[in-house]
Amino acid sequence: MTQQTKFLLDEGRMPTHWYNIAADLPQPLPAVLHPGTLQPIGPADLEPLFPMELILQEVSTQREIPIPEPVREVFKLWRPSPLIRARRLEKMLGTPAKIYYKYEGVSPAGSHKPNTAVPQAWYNAQAGVKKLTTETGAGQWGSSLAFAGSLFGIDVQVFQVRVSYDQKPYRRALMETYGARCVASPSNLTNSGRAILARDPDHPGSLGIAISEAVEVAATHDDTKYALGSVLNHVLLHQTIVGQEAIAQMEMAGDDPDVIIGCTGGGSNFSGIVLPFLGMQLRGGRRRRIVAVEPAACPSLTRGKYAYDFGDTAHLTPLTKMHTLGSTFTPPGFHAGGLRYHGMAPLVSHLKELGLIEATAYQQNACFEAGVMFARAEGIVPAPEANHAVKGAIVEALRCKAEDRPQTILFNLCGHGHFDMTAYSNYTAGKLLDQQYDEAELAMALSGLPSVPA
Amino acid sequence: MTQQTKFLLDEGRMPTHWYNIAADLPQPLPAVLHPGTLQPIGPADLEPLFPMELILQEVSTQREIPIPEPVREVFKLWRPSPLIRARRLEKMLGTPAKIYYKYEGVSPAGSHKPNTAVPQAWYNAQAGVKKLTTETGAGQWGSSLAFAGSLFGIDVQVFQVRVSYDQKPYRRALMETYGARCVASPSNLTNSGRAILARDPDHPGSLGIAISEAVEVAATHDDTKYALGSVLNHVLLHQTIVGQEAIAQMEMAGDDPDVIIGCTGGGSNFSGIVLPFLGMQLRGGRRRRIVAVEPAACPSLTRGKYAYDFGDTAHLTPLTKMHTLGSTFTPPGFHAGGLRYHGMAPLVSHLKELGLIEATAYQQNACFEAGVMFARAEGIVPAPEANHAVKGAIVEALRCKAEDRPQTILFNLCGHGHFDMTAYSNYTAGKLLDQQYDEAELAMALSGLPSVPA
Repeated sequence: MTQQTKFLLDEGRMPTHWYNIAADLPQPLPAVLHPGTLQPIGPADLEPLFPMELILQEVSTQREIPIPEPVREVFKLWRPSPLIRARRLEKMLGTPAKIYYKYEGVSPAGSHKPNTAVPQAWYNAQAGVKKLTTETGAGQWGSSLAFAGSLFGIDVQVFQVRVSYDQKPYRRALMETYGARCVASPSNLTNSGRAILARDPDHPGSLGIAISEAVEVAATHDDTKYALGSVLNHVLLHQTIVGQEAIAQMEMAGDDPDVIIGCTGGGSNFSGIVLPFLGMQLRGGRRRRIVAVEPAACPSLTRGKYAYDFGDTAHLTPLTKMHTLGSTFTPPGFHAGGLRYHGMAPLVSHLKELGLIEATAYQQNACFEAGVMFARAEGIVPAPEANHAVKGAIVEALRCKAEDRPQTILFNLCGHGHFDMTAYSNYTAGKLLDQQYDEAELAMALSGLPSVPA
Repeated sequence: MTQQTKFLLDEGRMPTHWYNIAADLPQPLPAVLHPGTLQPIGPADLEPLFPMELILQEVSTQREIPIPEPVREVFKLWRPSPLIRARRLEKMLGTPAKIYYKYEGVSPAGSHKPNTAVPQAWYNAQAGVKKLTTETGAGQWGSSLAFAGSLFGIDVQVFQVRVSYDQKPYRRALMETYGARCVASPSNLTNSGRAILARDPDHPGSLGIAISEAVEVAATHDDTKYALGSVLNHVLLHQTIVGQEAIAQMEMAGDDPDVIIGCTGGGSNFSGIVLPFLGMQLRGGRRRRIVAVEPAACPSLTRGKYAYDFGDTAHLTPLTKMHTLGSTFTPPGFHAGGLRYHGMAPLVSHLKELGLIEATAYQQNACFEAGVMFARAEGIVPAPEANHAVKGAIVEALRCKAEDRPQTILFNLCGHGHFDMTAYSNYTAGKLLDQQYDEAELAMALSGLPSVPA
């Protein structure tokens, strides 16, 4: 009898419902406010941007929301994704801990993002929408929506943060292979883009700016809606398929995680693996440590303020209460482009305030060191974003070694790094620099937070 | 009850033996000849290059050869690989055919190559070898051996065909992430490389030249052996795990392929999926059509001569009887770098001569057109090499449509194209050119075939 390494679920055991933690929260999320009136918004306020089914998911408190059958059919191309025990990494670290990772890089776009791109495209197609706009950082979200759009006959236009657009031309080629159009942001296609280019023609862009551009196009075109790859409740909801599968797979493995780890940019892959476990806890189950790992150069959860803020730079979006570095904050151009967002999902921020999760931050060289170690042990080269989770898992495994405690660690390996090899090249050549945000800029961005009556 | 799309085997059902078709061949393979004496070689002649276990596999006629347990442990990181029914592609084509593909892109290096890289590295490590040299075209083989070397503590030096080295820097970064060294070939590190550079400093390289360089280094260093990613019997043997899994998975699907398709460069991924099915036929089972698809710009099976030839350009290797374009033939620099080899595996050539397989050739634009269609239907962006198999499958599916015959088609999707997005970019922009070899050069290369007494 040999040791089992990989835990697979048959298609027949793919979850049929998403798990909605709103049903189990001890306190509800703070209200979302209209950017003009500062009053709580209703579903109708979001209609210019999203189809009603997604708006209803955004505000639902129903515990289980069915996954439409055509969406599950698409998921079968790669789901259920594998849960893998990192036996070689454990050995390399000499830890008594067991390390498991859920591997979302098996999707066509190479990350967890299709988990929400596919249902978002499907609900839009059902509502008769013909065009979708979106933003993307590293391109994982943009290529995922491009893929999903190609399946349901929807035109996709992607505003990609300029620094990533320049660093990662292969992601753009992937979006174009799926039939999408991709433009560097800030662009001269929108008022918000033109305003920024007028001030700084070489602006590196940010997710906040790209969101402004995509939202502006959707809001000003009747046949066009907008899709967001993270942050919103319905996006996090769609990712819960990851954690639900992981619960079943950990049972197959006969283990139960003591610590669960995910990297956080907007918060969606983290929520995907974490929320179903947290839901069990909120319904009276066992308490586990849950750790969010973010980049030290864009540390919304560890250094941001918990306050109402805009989701974008041009202040076109509603206000949500979240951990934020300020909507005008532009993070340095480090390689984990998917984590370069000024805010954190309101839901993740809420969990942090409730003391249900921890947060920590690392610099990129430490994360790439962890990623290279992982690649040489496990074969898979993680995406720069995922390296943050790998780093978090290694820190926990070494803590277990120091304390001689055989704990079980689970982390979400949210994507592979095949489109990020320039960053690995730079790391191998010793050319990768740790990056610091500007403290003065952060202070200024935080001082500019909107004032909202209590 | 919904339709099943993906057929997965548990780790416990991973094959425990490789299938050796030598046990079932109606006629044995022609002898391998010594390059100096032109006499049949014995195992001892190969000892400077390979460990004895691999040499014994090269000449074995034992039907089943056990897969070592440590090799199977590594395979568990991604094997058994999925078999997927291409339902969306079938629908897009409007074909009554059922199309299945075995997906080898789930390996850490993104192709089928680790199936032989891992056992080769392991057998070398068992024999005390510390360093391995090899050649690579697109880099799929080089990155696979780099991965395998990192697992067993072997230093890997890769000679990469210059045109691919320049076109695909990300593959090099991947090799370096796994800890290997990579150099463009022809290089000035070897006599054979220097001789070519002296004639043409801008030589684009070829697999034949890179093999000469890697073999030269291994033959002249006691602590160094050589590993080849295709062509040889033991390499094809290692790939039979693919077809054995496919047999079990087609049974799960309740179907039986009428046509089996693979792309051919050296012949290993083709052999991997084909040989176990062919073995059943040779032992009295059903006859199936088996189709090899090669690039029209390097058409060894369809335009080459079946004759004794060298495996490399500098004539350091033994002579084998195979379909060859001549060892001095340099194919044009098309994007499917893994298919740019002047010869075909002796075993595949032998099967062709025995009438057991068919062969066909396509230009690269037709293959990329097929690959983009596949990506938009199935999500996965195939490697340029794999696009040849996709093209072959689509041709068969459209034939079934024209004939109104609901046949079952199986093909090997040997790798993903995430490292080849430049080629897709060029294709999307209409900049990809079909390429023709020079007829005069081919005639000259064929006229230079070594003369071997009958």
